[in-house]
Amino acid sequence: MSVPVRPGNPPPMPRYAFRIEYFGAPFAGWQRQAGLPSVQGAFEAALARLDPGPHGVAAAGRTDAGVHALGQVAHADMARDWDPFRLMEAINAHLRPAPVAVTACAVVPPDWHARFSAIERGYLYRIVTRRAPLTFGAGHAWLVRHRLDAQAMAEGARHLVGRHDFTTFRSAMCQAASPLRTLDALEVQPIDGPEGQEIRIRARARSFLHNQVRSMVGSLERVGAGAWKPERMAEALAARDRAACGPVAPPQGLWLTHVRYDPDPFTPP
Amino acid sequence: MSVPVRPGNPPPMPRYAFRIEYFGAPFAGWQRQAGLPSVQGAFEAALARLDPGPHGVAAAGRTDAGVHALGQVAHADMARDWDPFRLMEAINAHLRPAPVAVTACAVVPPDWHARFSAIERGYLYRIVTRRAPLTFGAGHAWLVRHRLDAQAMAEGARHLVGRHDFTTFRSAMCQAASPLRTLDALEVQPIDGPEGQEIRIRARARSFLHNQVRSMVGSLERVGAGAWKPERMAEALAARDRAACGPVAPPQGLWLTHVRYDPDPFTPP
Repeated sequence: MSVPVRPGNPPPMPRYAFRIEYFGAPFAGWQRQAGLPSVQGAFEAALARLDPGPHGVAAAGRTDAGVHALGQVAHADMARDWDPFRLMEAINAHLRPAPVAVTACAVVPPDWHARFSAIERGYLYRIVTRRAPLTFGAGHAWLVRHRLDAQAMAEGARHLVGRHDFTTFRSAMCQAASPLRTLDALEVQPIDGPEGQEIRIRARARSFLHNQVRSMVGSLERVGAGAWKPERMAEALAARDRAACGPVAPPQGLWLTHVRYDPDPFTPP
Repeated sequence: MSVPVRPGNPPPMPRYAFRIEYFGAPFAGWQRQAGLPSVQGAFEAALARLDPGPHGVAAAGRTDAGVHALGQVAHADMARDWDPFRLMEAINAHLRPAPVAVTACAVVPPDWHARFSAIERGYLYRIVTRRAPLTFGAGHAWLVRHRLDAQAMAEGARHLVGRHDFTTFRSAMCQAASPLRTLDALEVQPIDGPEGQEIRIRARARSFLHNQVRSMVGSLERVGAGAWKPERMAEALAARDRAACGPVAPPQGLWLTHVRYDPDPFTPP
């Protein structure tokens, strides 16, 4: 018995979700850009070796040049059915030697969207404070050569949590329709890292504006250095003026740690 | 008033202890070797830019090619007196861009010796277990693509702790006069690392034989994989035969974490 073919209404291509890890240094960011190496470009080139597509790749977060990901999530449509584990293995084989790896793969419904279905994004920003240049952490963290007061930074960070107009902390290039965002958490934690004192800043929200995390971190660094009082974070926010922001923190300290969905596509029901 | 010069008996050159961190991948090991890049060579070249020497550099552990250090310790004699902090800063400036950094510097007595004064060395071995190639951990850990039973490994490790003849677990090239060593600790800890399941193995002893840690770890991996029962570690040790050792674990997972002295030269009294 054969299934009747309905012309003009082809069956939808199966859609897969991928959790992707990458070291951002060699890339101009997630997004494909003509003539520049991008994570999306590397991922699509690996897919193209396996399956004709079109793959319609989209990711939860369009990370900037030099920014890393431990848990980026993207989706792609495939021309034929794949066993998710074998698809992950095949993509990883074709990604080598780029510092990009698929760490999970799952079938998702055809209307599931890595960007629009996401309910939370989580970022980590790593600052290492010490005098010596970084050896292992070079390209993985922001090296600050003076002491930072983590308690003052935590106090400053609390002023930003909640629903606010984040105009001060968004890039002039930000294309979001609204500067309103709800910041669910902005936590500052001092830790005794392998390369010395480290400040880890974790941010969680349904979505972020362009450069929002790096703008908040750059301002918090000023608080930690003693150049700003913690309350100046509240004043900067209230100003709703990009000029009130501190220097934007460099990309190499920023890590997209996770993207949440409900249900989680990577957890078997 | 001038100090009388005693000919034939020059004042001793001031000696400095250095804590040194390095990423081992680009080096043929700590020890200077003609025509090959070495950490000692990089360190001595930086010293030579500052001070005529001879510096008589010696280190606590002669790490192999590809092995990393978070807390190597070396000493050097300088022709003139230096403020330790300024000396550290000057050496670091001359070490760039090599992935080597001095993280502490102190004046020590002229008879203090980085190797012979050491009372304990500590190593960490990192194994990451997952299917996907490593992105951040590439060159920083051993990637094992199958599951490892950390509890079985811990059980196997316990057979090696104590004073034993470690002939099975020493390189055929080892030049130590005796194969007897006292292994103070060999701990296996499973952790949920940023790149997935990780097994961290920590070893502590006054001193180690050549390739001892990597030989023990390579055998423990066989236990974790289920190919060896934990008791086989005791049998291998008792055999006192290099042929009874498992495959030697690769260098990129090994980190010299600390060297202990009493008193610690880097802690102000």
